[in-house]
Amino acid sequence: MKNILIIGAGKSSSALIKYLLDTSDKENLFLTIGDISTENAHKLINNHQNAIAIVLDVFDKKQREEQIQKADLVISMLPARFHLDVAKDCIAFNKHMVTASYISDEMKALDAAAKKKGLVFMNEIGLDPGIDHMSAMQVIDKIKDAGGKMLLFESFCGGIVAPESDNNLWNYKFTWNPRNVVLAGQGGAAMFIQEGTYKYIPYHKLFRRSEFLEVKGSGKFEAIANRDSLKYRSVYGLDDIPTMYRGTIRKIGFSRAWNIFVQLGMTDDSYTIEESENMSYRDFINLFLAYSPSDSIELKLRSYLKIDQDDVMWEKLIELDIFNPTKKIGLKNATPAQMLQSILEESWTLDENDKDMIVMQHLFGYELNGERFQIESSFVVLGENQTYTAMSKTVGLPVGIAAVNILKGKIKTPGVQIPISKEVYEPILKELEAHGIIFSEEKVPYLGYNPNNVVG
Amino acid sequence: MKNILIIGAGKSSSALIKYLLDTSDKENLFLTIGDISTENAHKLINNHQNAIAIVLDVFDKKQREEQIQKADLVISMLPARFHLDVAKDCIAFNKHMVTASYISDEMKALDAAAKKKGLVFMNEIGLDPGIDHMSAMQVIDKIKDAGGKMLLFESFCGGIVAPESDNNLWNYKFTWNPRNVVLAGQGGAAMFIQEGTYKYIPYHKLFRRSEFLEVKGSGKFEAIANRDSLKYRSVYGLDDIPTMYRGTIRKIGFSRAWNIFVQLGMTDDSYTIEESENMSYRDFINLFLAYSPSDSIELKLRSYLKIDQDDVMWEKLIELDIFNPTKKIGLKNATPAQMLQSILEESWTLDENDKDMIVMQHLFGYELNGERFQIESSFVVLGENQTYTAMSKTVGLPVGIAAVNILKGKIKTPGVQIPISKEVYEPILKELEAHGIIFSEEKVPYLGYNPNNVVG
Repeated sequence: MKNILIIGAGKSSSALIKYLLDTSDKENLFLTIGDISTENAHKLINNHQNAIAIVLDVFDKKQREEQIQKADLVISMLPARFHLDVAKDCIAFNKHMVTASYISDEMKALDAAAKKKGLVFMNEIGLDPGIDHMSAMQVIDKIKDAGGKMLLFESFCGGIVAPESDNNLWNYKFTWNPRNVVLAGQGGAAMFIQEGTYKYIPYHKLFRRSEFLEVKGSGKFEAIANRDSLKYRSVYGLDDIPTMYRGTIRKIGFSRAWNIFVQLGMTDDSYTIEESENMSYRDFINLFLAYSPSDSIELKLRSYLKIDQDDVMWEKLIELDIFNPTKKIGLKNATPAQMLQSILEESWTLDENDKDMIVMQHLFGYELNGERFQIESSFVVLGENQTYTAMSKTVGLPVGIAAVNILKGKIKTPGVQIPISKEVYEPILKELEAHGIIFSEEKVPYLGYNPNNVVG
Repeated sequence: MKNILIIGAGKSSSALIKYLLDTSDKENLFLTIGDISTENAHKLINNHQNAIAIVLDVFDKKQREEQIQKADLVISMLPARFHLDVAKDCIAFNKHMVTASYISDEMKALDAAAKKKGLVFMNEIGLDPGIDHMSAMQVIDKIKDAGGKMLLFESFCGGIVAPESDNNLWNYKFTWNPRNVVLAGQGGAAMFIQEGTYKYIPYHKLFRRSEFLEVKGSGKFEAIANRDSLKYRSVYGLDDIPTMYRGTIRKIGFSRAWNIFVQLGMTDDSYTIEESENMSYRDFINLFLAYSPSDSIELKLRSYLKIDQDDVMWEKLIELDIFNPTKKIGLKNATPAQMLQSILEESWTLDENDKDMIVMQHLFGYELNGERFQIESSFVVLGENQTYTAMSKTVGLPVGIAAVNILKGKIKTPGVQIPISKEVYEPILKELEAHGIIFSEEKVPYLGYNPNNVVG
């Protein structure tokens, strides 16, 4: 029997645990699921014989080491900043490790040690990062193997609300960590390259520089540029590619309205508001508008951001009840971002029967035998319910499949890595198809980065 | 004879050294002026018998300690980050110290040690911070002493080009460190309070939220809010004041045009541009505009920022030659802010005969015996030439006067401090008047913070 230790039994672990339990008899697996509280783990295990839930405090060195020693492979589903102690123990006790998080410099530094001990340390193997890497590399490798030269790579991914649950003016609900949504795009200018020209977008313009895309069967979407697309040139082996762009998908119109919050300064998380605990929604808005002894907050906002009275953006603000003078936010020493999040959570929290949706699309442009081609590759997954969400599925399945394949020796190249080699992505993408995560691939005319098909 | 060690003989030290040399016979002073190179120090000393120039590397511990031991008082005119080693030596060897820089936490931490040894460590005693503190506290203390209650404090200061040298469309030239001008307003939201309402302005809106002021005899100006006005409530003993605002003065129209650079993202200093060394002015602009196979950079910029063709903002850009496709910036691994600075320096550097100007204005609102009053207090100083600039005068004179008064024992309260006590500001402000830095004070009708005098 192979022992897997899963650390973290939160929302994102449900599909992962279900997958591993479903394959546990066939693959001879036993799961130990550790978290600060066992409540959610017990629910997810649902009396399955091949798993136990334990209370595990990742900061308790003795207990952590004890559990890691008993395992053959450790999956950490904790936030990225908690991985390192676990990773060091895995090196010490010769255990493989899997995470869905962005690889940190500290994690990278363990590469030599992992290689020396023959251990696979797989990172960025969730949805984004994860499925995006694998599905992109599969097509890029195919094009290169055929002798093609990559000219363009654009990649879009987003977690949004499913069409059947899409019933507010923003066409958006929180299907994942709300804090990440409020802070999205911060931390530096977005950078990418289009047709050989570097492009840099400051945060305050990011939501006015969205790009459009169309996913067959699901309609049009917009994408907001991710922070650093340039670094993926070397990650994907595309150092000289003239167009490289990665973005986050939203329904069209979201960015234009979200830009109101950005312009006002409400998404700032770098300072706290004085006397925030006493502020109403209306007081909060007024913090970001000029003082006037007589003008209304509504008119000040409209005039400041030049919003026409019949603009749907205005209706979106009203829907959030953001001008309410009596509703209190009630957070002490809160940042603007925290206060905004609190207001949004009242409107954008999923109802019990709401479903989420994941959309991903890649565009590959390339030259082969003097001719130019373009491939469009997309998938859409809907959540089943509030536990087995599309997000949990698309994050948890690749993590689980990777873990099983590492234990079976199918994924065996040691070292700290991300899933960009054939050995890794081929078995995983294949099995994902069986779970409904299927990319539909289509050849389209080569456009380059030229959204309106303008003749230059 | 009293020995003063001046560390740093750059542009900002000229008026300081002139003042100390001019008073050296009367006050029995001898100056040792240390810098990495003695060239400028020699020029400023001009063979005066009461001073020598020495090569001094502030990072050379032995030499630094040697020189500090010989002095009775040390003036550091270096950038603030270099003060600390000097300050620690001054504690060790029982020397007073004077700087024009904002007091750092590390500097504050020396307060107990300075007090114990009876040493005066005077900081923020230049123009802004410096003269602003002193002139404000003098009026605030007068109002309080008379039994008045402060209702409003607004303070504006700026270094700009003198009217006679004001010959470009921006009405601006670099009269001080260009880097500080390019980065002005960055590092967090501007925060202040107006009529009891907290106000927060994000950086990207700062230059669209300027306030207007009028200085008798000099006309109208605009002011851009400084980063944190709120903290001056406790510094000035005005904890419950309903209006507290500090801002930087520019000629009207500067902010609206500067906002173009902010909106484009050109003032960002947090990342470097790839291949910056090969870029022309025109390439630089295009980094921040959407890709197009055919549209001109000019039209893309106009459309993006909605600039009409006959808007003077457009002429301001043309004046900077910013669309020039052949002029190279020529900086390797440069940030956008560095590249912008380089472009601006070509247009905004003072000509040999250009003069600068300092403008300061305070507004004090208060209640006395049930009635409300307002005082307007302002000064304007012109530079003499490129060496004895208004900036150098208004920074150097208070530093020099403070140093002499500390040595004479007129300023004697020990500790790490800023000039907000009567003991400090009274002799200094009095002597500044003899040098033409004279505040004209006027009672005006009480308006409160109500720029358009609207009846609420």
